[in-house]
Amino acid sequence: MNEDDLIARFFAPLAGPGGLGLKDDVALLTPPPGRDLVVTADALVAGVHFFSHDPPDAIAAKALRVNLSDLAAKGATPLGFLLSLALPREAGEAWLEVFAQGLGADARTYGCPLLGGDTVKTPGPLTLSITALGTVEPGRAPLRTAARAGDWLYVSGTIGDAALGLQLRLGKGPSLSPSLRDFLLERYLRPQPRLALSPALAHARAAMDVSDGLAGDLAKMLRASGVGGVLDLREVPFSDAARAWFAQDAGGIEIAATGGDDYEVLAAVPPEQAAAFEAAATVPVTRIGAVGEGTFEVLDLSGAPARFARGAYSHF
Amino acid sequence: MNEDDLIARFFAPLAGPGGLGLKDDVALLTPPPGRDLVVTADALVAGVHFFSHDPPDAIAAKALRVNLSDLAAKGATPLGFLLSLALPREAGEAWLEVFAQGLGADARTYGCPLLGGDTVKTPGPLTLSITALGTVEPGRAPLRTAARAGDWLYVSGTIGDAALGLQLRLGKGPSLSPSLRDFLLERYLRPQPRLALSPALAHARAAMDVSDGLAGDLAKMLRASGVGGVLDLREVPFSDAARAWFAQDAGGIEIAATGGDDYEVLAAVPPEQAAAFEAAATVPVTRIGAVGEGTFEVLDLSGAPARFARGAYSHF
Repeated sequence: MNEDDLIARFFAPLAGPGGLGLKDDVALLTPPPGRDLVVTADALVAGVHFFSHDPPDAIAAKALRVNLSDLAAKGATPLGFLLSLALPREAGEAWLEVFAQGLGADARTYGCPLLGGDTVKTPGPLTLSITALGTVEPGRAPLRTAARAGDWLYVSGTIGDAALGLQLRLGKGPSLSPSLRDFLLERYLRPQPRLALSPALAHARAAMDVSDGLAGDLAKMLRASGVGGVLDLREVPFSDAARAWFAQDAGGIEIAATGGDDYEVLAAVPPEQAAAFEAAATVPVTRIGAVGEGTFEVLDLSGAPARFARGAYSHF
Repeated sequence: MNEDDLIARFFAPLAGPGGLGLKDDVALLTPPPGRDLVVTADALVAGVHFFSHDPPDAIAAKALRVNLSDLAAKGATPLGFLLSLALPREAGEAWLEVFAQGLGADARTYGCPLLGGDTVKTPGPLTLSITALGTVEPGRAPLRTAARAGDWLYVSGTIGDAALGLQLRLGKGPSLSPSLRDFLLERYLRPQPRLALSPALAHARAAMDVSDGLAGDLAKMLRASGVGGVLDLREVPFSDAARAWFAQDAGGIEIAATGGDDYEVLAAVPPEQAAAFEAAATVPVTRIGAVGEGTFEVLDLSGAPARFARGAYSHF
C-alpha cells in the first residue's frame, strides 16, 4: 500500500471542509471573519508519551486531545487539525484502521476535522505530531503571561489521576478496587480536553492547560507573569481514587501534584469576574488559591511547605 | 537543559509576531483580512528524508523549505510556521545551536517566522514536522485537481538534479567535474522553494510542487484532475550537470524524471494566460507540453514510450 492509497483509504474520509479531500498538498481555509486564529502543535513519541501497545484509537485520541486541550485553555473553538504521522513497519493496515476510526470519532465529537498532514515511514518508534487550529474572539484569549496579583486561581476537574494511572501501568501503587483502578487508568489513557470551558475562559485573565503537573505548570504561569503565589494542596480537587491512593501511600500526593497528563485547565480570574466565570463553567472548577507577589510556594496536606523532589515533569 | 530552557535559548529568538515569544502553548494570529489561509505539513525522518550526519542547518533548511515549496505551488505568501522536533540524545546543544541558526536564517530569508511548536525527546531517529501557514487571494490558489485538457504544462528550474545528487551521496553515478558534482549535491541538500513564482501562479489553473519525481507527480496531477497527457522528456529542462550525467550514463534520465526532491513547481496554465504567466515568472519556467485527454504517457529522449521501473517515489 503506497502513501496515496493509505491516505485515500484511511484518512481522506476524515477530511473536513478546507481539507480538499486530502487530494492536495495543502488545506485551504477562509478564516471566520472577526476572529483571531489560535494555533498549537504537540508531538508524541511511542515509549515516551504513550505505550506502543496502547490501543491505536486511544493513541489517536490522545494525540488530538492534547492539542485540543491547548485550544480549550485559550477559550478557543476548534477549526481543524493536521496530522504528521511517522509509521514504523509494525503499524500495518489493521493498526491504521483502528487508529483512523479513533481519530475520526474524536474529530466528530470535538468538531475538529482533519485538514491535512503527512504520512512517512520511520525505522524508529511511532511518532505523531498534530497541529490544531482554532479561533477566538480578538483580545480574549487568556495568555500564560497575563496573571496578576490578586487574581483567583481555578482548576478544572481533578488533579493527578493520570499521573497515578501511569504508575499503575508501570506496576506501582497501592491496592485499589477495580473501579478506582480503572478510573485512574482511563484518565491516563484518554485525556478529556476541556473545550466545554471555552466560553467561561472569556472571563479569565490568564490560563494554560495542566500537562506537566499542577505544581510545575502553576509555577510556570506565575513566573511567566512575573508574580508569585501559594499552591495549598488542601485546596486542590482530587478524585476519590486519588484520595484512596493517598490514604494508603502518602507519596501519592507528590505524584499527583507534580506528575503530568492532567489536561485540566488552570486559570487566573480577576475576583470581580469570578462569579461570571463560575456561572459559565459547564465542567467542575475549583478555586485553589490566589495569585500573590514574589515567590511561589507549595503547601502539603498538613499545611507545611512541601519538599518535592521535582517541580514539573520535563522532557529533558 | 530542560525543555523550557532549550526553547528559551534556541527557539524563542526566532519567534515572530503571534508567536508570543514561545512563552505560551499557542500562537495567536489575526489573519490578514480578505485572504484565504493555506496550511501544509511535512514530516522528515533522519535516515529516510535526509542523512543524519547532514549539517544541522541544512536539515533545518530542508524541513522548512519543503513546506515553503508547498505554499509556493499554491501561489501563497508565507505567514509563519510551527516546528515539532523529536530529538535523539545525540542532538545536543552544539547541534541545536547550528540547527536554530539555519532555521532562523531561512525564516528571515523567506519571511516566515517561527510561531510555535513542540520539542520532545525520542529514542529513535531525529524526526521533524513543520506546519507552515500562508495566505492567498481567495479563489486564486491553483489546486492539484483543476487541470483541464488544453492547458499548457510548465515546470520551474531544472528537473532531476536532487535525485542525481542523492545518487552521488550514495557513492553511485558517473565521474563528473567537481563543480558539476557540487551543484547536484547542493541541489539535494538545500532545496530552493519557488516562492518567487507565487505571483505568476495567479495565472495558473492547477499546480503542485514536484517532490516525488516529475513523472509521478505529473501523473498524480493529471489523474486527480481526470485528464491525461504526454510527458516528453525532450521538452524537460535539465541542468548541464544532469546532461553531463546522461551523456555517460543513459540510466540517469530515469533517475532524473522519477526521482524526488526537486521542489520545483509544476503548473497547468490556460493558453490564454500563458503570456501573463511567463511574464510574471521571475524564475525560469519551461513549457513541457500540454494537458490532454485519456491516458498519461512518458516519452524518453528518443521519443519512444519510456519503460521506467517506477512511476513515482513513494514512501511506502
